[in-house]
Amino acid sequence: MFTKSDITRQAIIEKSAPIFNTKGYSATTMNDILLATGLTKGGVYGNFESKDQIAIEAFEHSIGKLLEALRFKIKKENTAKDKLFAILSFYKNYSINPLTEGGCPLLNTAIESDDNLPFLKIKAQKALNELLGGLAFIIQKGIDSKEFRDELDAQEEATLIFSIIQGGLMISKLADNPKILNGLLENLKATINTQYLR
Amino acid sequence: MFTKSDITRQAIIEKSAPIFNTKGYSATTMNDILLATGLTKGGVYGNFESKDQIAIEAFEHSIGKLLEALRFKIKKENTAKDKLFAILSFYKNYSINPLTEGGCPLLNTAIESDDNLPFLKIKAQKALNELLGGLAFIIQKGIDSKEFRDELDAQEEATLIFSIIQGGLMISKLADNPKILNGLLENLKATINTQYLR
Repeated sequence: MFTKSDITRQAIIEKSAPIFNTKGYSATTMNDILLATGLTKGGVYGNFESKDQIAIEAFEHSIGKLLEALRFKIKKENTAKDKLFAILSFYKNYSINPLTEGGCPLLNTAIESDDNLPFLKIKAQKALNELLGGLAFIIQKGIDSKEFRDELDAQEEATLIFSIIQGGLMISKLADNPKILNGLLENLKATINTQYLR
Repeated sequence: MFTKSDITRQAIIEKSAPIFNTKGYSATTMNDILLATGLTKGGVYGNFESKDQIAIEAFEHSIGKLLEALRFKIKKENTAKDKLFAILSFYKNYSINPLTEGGCPLLNTAIESDDNLPFLKIKAQKALNELLGGLAFIIQKGIDSKEFRDELDAQEEATLIFSIIQGGLMISKLADNPKILNGLLENLKATINTQYLR
């Protein structure tokens, strides 16, 4: 059973996640969280010791949603190629239609935390490792099963694909033009067809 | 001749640029700027009407330095290939040794401003256009002069190269591992050698 406090905690996390992801950690105030949740200061601080704690759990919530959605799409496919294509399709229109309002929680949190928010940076590092590791795992499986070429370096290709997605997302969102990211995703599909498949 | 006020303005911009680039716009306080410049509130507000105005000029200062350094490197080279290689060399170790402390001002400002700081977003958009436009111009020159292959789409390749640089920079900096970005830059050089040159 969930206690009333569990439910309140969860509501605080779910309602503050899009705010942190849109405004960033530093610009998000306790007042923003109170407005979004309709709770009093006591109601929030009764469940979380600090804004930092809410920020950490809000990030983990947003990343958890992203990983879950990706896993769901990947699991439905059988070949390594189709799994990679499912990931690329997931990011289609991501610059205008992200899972959590504000864009990619990893990209946003990485850029804001890397110099001076170590408590968020370690969470973003963990998410990066899961995403890169997952990509490399799929590519390695494709190599091992003779679907992909032997010469591929799974880790290197995973890094390249993920850089293009994240860099393309930044550019598309800044330029207010989803076609930039979508074009890069199509190019990646072509590369997989011509350079990965045996 | 520079007036005393011009010199003070310039000092405020130069000293606050690395702070904005490291902490971000929202986390940078007027107190940070006072501490860095050694000025009083009156001394700063006598030269700038608001923190926003300092942030805009600090961003333009950081981007101006980056564009100037790139142009200097590009100008020294003659072929399109060597110009592209000069750009890639510029970004080597950028995750640990950027021109302005805090990393790439375009990447940092894009991510922080794209949802809700329109006055900074338009400045970042202008910088993106200059960087992408400059890259595409070099590639198009290479195509026109028969150095590069006809089939290349200069705009598309510029977007791809710049996505890899920016995405790789995010990943390298988050992972505290300059080799990730450096490896991607080496891959890009290999791609230019094998797929761009006739």
